[in-house]
Amino acid sequence: MDGSLSGLGDISTPGRVAGPEEGVTAQELALAARNHGLPLEALRYDVTPPGLHYVLVHYDIPATDADGWRLTVGGRVLRTLDLDLAELRARPAVTRRVTLECAGNGRARLTPRPVSQPWLVEAVGTADWTGVPLADLLAEAGTAEDAAEAVFTGADHGVERGVEQDYRRSLPLATAADPARDVLVAYAMNGAPLPPQHGSPLRLVVPGWYGMAHVKWLHDITLTDTPYTGFQQSVAYRLRRDAEEPGEPVTLIAPRALMVPPGFPDFMSRTRVVRPGAVPLTGRAWSGHGPVTRVEVSEDGGAAWTDAEIARDPAHPWAWSAWRTTWTATPGLRHLTVRATDAAGNVQPLDPPWNRGGFANNLVQRVEVLCTPEASGARSAGA
Amino acid sequence: MDGSLSGLGDISTPGRVAGPEEGVTAQELALAARNHGLPLEALRYDVTPPGLHYVLVHYDIPATDADGWRLTVGGRVLRTLDLDLAELRARPAVTRRVTLECAGNGRARLTPRPVSQPWLVEAVGTADWTGVPLADLLAEAGTAEDAAEAVFTGADHGVERGVEQDYRRSLPLATAADPARDVLVAYAMNGAPLPPQHGSPLRLVVPGWYGMAHVKWLHDITLTDTPYTGFQQSVAYRLRRDAEEPGEPVTLIAPRALMVPPGFPDFMSRTRVVRPGAVPLTGRAWSGHGPVTRVEVSEDGGAAWTDAEIARDPAHPWAWSAWRTTWTATPGLRHLTVRATDAAGNVQPLDPPWNRGGFANNLVQRVEVLCTPEASGARSAGA
Repeated sequence: MDGSLSGLGDISTPGRVAGPEEGVTAQELALAARNHGLPLEALRYDVTPPGLHYVLVHYDIPATDADGWRLTVGGRVLRTLDLDLAELRARPAVTRRVTLECAGNGRARLTPRPVSQPWLVEAVGTADWTGVPLADLLAEAGTAEDAAEAVFTGADHGVERGVEQDYRRSLPLATAADPARDVLVAYAMNGAPLPPQHGSPLRLVVPGWYGMAHVKWLHDITLTDTPYTGFQQSVAYRLRRDAEEPGEPVTLIAPRALMVPPGFPDFMSRTRVVRPGAVPLTGRAWSGHGPVTRVEVSEDGGAAWTDAEIARDPAHPWAWSAWRTTWTATPGLRHLTVRATDAAGNVQPLDPPWNRGGFANNLVQRVEVLCTPEASGARSAGA
Repeated sequence: MDGSLSGLGDISTPGRVAGPEEGVTAQELALAARNHGLPLEALRYDVTPPGLHYVLVHYDIPATDADGWRLTVGGRVLRTLDLDLAELRARPAVTRRVTLECAGNGRARLTPRPVSQPWLVEAVGTADWTGVPLADLLAEAGTAEDAAEAVFTGADHGVERGVEQDYRRSLPLATAADPARDVLVAYAMNGAPLPPQHGSPLRLVVPGWYGMAHVKWLHDITLTDTPYTGFQQSVAYRLRRDAEEPGEPVTLIAPRALMVPPGFPDFMSRTRVVRPGAVPLTGRAWSGHGPVTRVEVSEDGGAAWTDAEIARDPAHPWAWSAWRTTWTATPGLRHLTVRATDAAGNVQPLDPPWNRGGFANNLVQRVEVLCTPEASGARSAGA
């Protein structure tokens, strides 16, 4: 199923970490140009508008045909299923608002920098996903007693670190079949059929897990009696310090708060400009480990903190929470910082948690803000 | 209207060019993460699906309210206009399919690299724009005899190279009022209201011109009797070799052909993998100077060329044309290259045309492709 491709030579090299002074490479730039983040001002939308939700495509967006699409469910099941989209859409559906984040979010803020998709803080989005609960499909198929995992295969095909593959990931059966986990086989995003880049026509949604688990362009679910050890499960998406460690699997989303940068920006530096006085600060916070219980804001890079108010929406437990506070800006260069704490006690770190793959780096966001003197002559942001 | 912001210091520095060995900087990466290109496989769509069309936002996507939006037309006119969206939508509308490209497309492929939005080749998209012809609005307002230019103001506000500003650009009146130029005041994209990042609720569309002319979040049109010399007209968007030159204005889109990369990719290098034999090559080509008259493909980086077939669609003169050819792939590492020629005789260069701002770099695209030997054991791309 995965095959090593002879003749690849230099075109599909092992993972590496950048040298100490090494700037972002042309390869990383090409990935940044294809795969985009959420512009931070778009945190203002409860549900991220189409085109602003982050996108990560490992290989290419496959050319899929919704009409001919089939989802097969097999392996260690009592009955195999072979369903087209019409049959899936005919089943009882649910809609869940889910905040999704790429496991590599924050990677490019690590030193040394793991060389891969170079995210800063913006690989996130929130959408309403509609589909069939996976638990219902598995109940319909019936799971064999020795079924241990569910392996999900998508249509995107490529080669990575020398291994040719279709994108494939597994979940423990306990997670896949747990109704409380709300895993969906989704065919709609924000009320419309899935866009091409978000998995058209069918994808998995695993609320609270990082994005690699949410297999896109999904066409097969196979239950196995042994753990899946393919590339995206055992090579990629592991927390390691050294290359030869097996590492720990990447799973639930670590807590993160993001701030809508206040005032207006400088085009190049993205430093913000505000006038002295009361400045509303707003943003979002989330965690895959449980509800966010605290959001704190600092204007001095984390020396002193004040609490922000969190607005929890019980209707959408898998979606980010809104937070807000008012900052009294005084002239000078300020370093706004925000950090989230979740119900399990996890707190965002002020120092980056380094690992070789650059995963789960939920280092606090830092926003540089220049508060101008009153008499600067700068006019306030016009509309 | 434009104001220098005192106290900015290091946060809004002059334009610069990267040092000879300088990798992409964190600031450039932040711009690449916010502003994305068209994933090249998406060239397969005649009209770019929402979310895949390139996005360039100078400052922030402003929070706009369609209900309260007004467009004013004034200055050297006989009658001022003050219209809301309902009034604009009530007027006779047209829809035009337009291929749009960022003036900075190709910038990051220049050496030395101008430090700004670091595009490679992907800053492009094609959409159906619906709106009121600008020529009709200007005829309604009546242009004074001394009117020379139309100045367009958008709602995005920021500071750039020390100059605080709303994004503002002008067109010569002859261009703005020319029915054949098809300049639109557009309120819909692909049949739906403009998305936030594409100018909601109103924008300019100037077919054949680079993207900087297509002012988004448009709220004012003012006719002037003297040329507009604000930041985005006289500092930015000029073709210069030295900083102190006035430079030539950036206007019409230079010819470009892009190829859908064949086969499947390596995740990191984006090198493509194909099997020996007949490989269909497809893509798009366009020019703001006139129809594309020739598309040529090379497998050896430009030593030898063969002609591709071009499919022109007379219904959409402002949109890219599709091209196709069949390549016979033989084992080895190949350097596929494609170049367009337009009716005005402009040809894409094989050497990058350098200028200090990194504009209009229509250097040919190069796609590295590994053709594997027959007996490599690599299986063909699955679906």
